[in-house]
Amino acid sequence: MQWTAAFGSLARLVSRGDAFVTYVPPAPSIVDDIIAQVKFDANGLISALAQAPDGVVLMLAWMNADALRETLLTGRVCYWSRSRQKLWRKGETSGQQQKLIEARLDCDMDAVLMIVDQTGVACHTGRRSCFYHGVTPDGLRDTSQPEISAEELYGR
Amino acid sequence: MQWTAAFGSLARLVSRGDAFVTYVPPAPSIVDDIIAQVKFDANGLISALAQAPDGVVLMLAWMNADALRETLLTGRVCYWSRSRQKLWRKGETSGQQQKLIEARLDCDMDAVLMIVDQTGVACHTGRRSCFYHGVTPDGLRDTSQPEISAEELYGR
Repeated sequence: MQWTAAFGSLARLVSRGDAFVTYVPPAPSIVDDIIAQVKFDANGLISALAQAPDGVVLMLAWMNADALRETLLTGRVCYWSRSRQKLWRKGETSGQQQKLIEARLDCDMDAVLMIVDQTGVACHTGRRSCFYHGVTPDGLRDTSQPEISAEELYGR
Repeated sequence: MQWTAAFGSLARLVSRGDAFVTYVPPAPSIVDDIIAQVKFDANGLISALAQAPDGVVLMLAWMNADALRETLLTGRVCYWSRSRQKLWRKGETSGQQQKLIEARLDCDMDAVLMIVDQTGVACHTGRRSCFYHGVTPDGLRDTSQPEISAEELYGR
């Protein structure tokens, strides 16, 4: 049976509000097998994409092996912050956590797509998605506005 | 008026079959202004994501300034192939072109999300999406099957 096809269709039933988290973590040894197949770049990183169940692409960040391992073992999304050079458990400061619903690696095993249950907003600017600089005939224009103020996000 | 919000909602009306391409290229000088704001990495690249109007994330690849410029000016998606170290006009061999419907850069201007009208399939394996290695409790399992054979894709 194709596990993730079932999870995939299940995930698409997940609406933003009543998220039903379906992710079942593999055993540590299986996670290590998976990570052994992943093609990390020269900096030890892969691209990591988060998408909401309704299809909105929320953000693109980076993961090293430790971040991917923690994400797959705990179901709580953890990235690698290139600027701070440390693990970045999404929401550790802002509370805007991401719970994993489904994870898929791409054909050449150097990027991961995660369907996530996002608490609040994904972007540090307070927007739901980080992808908001829209290309228009007049140049870049914002396609969305902050839903939460940056002070609220990081002030508390 | 928020151009791309309108384009965005319009794009979501686009079904796979009767794609109505809405992208209007900016003038060259405006494209150059946009590119001047983009944060290319040490290799001169940004991450480039293609998503279908129905929400399926098709692929993640890379663009340098020339590839992004050609994409924004022509509305036909062009990547940078890291393995072949040259511009990669999507579909130039396989015919599986991508026409731009909408493009948005992310908050720190180092990744672009493109809603595209994909001819055929996006993945070199003949699958619609490159993201098919699903993480399951039993390890990686394919979440989709090829829709076109690789021979058919590259044989002709």
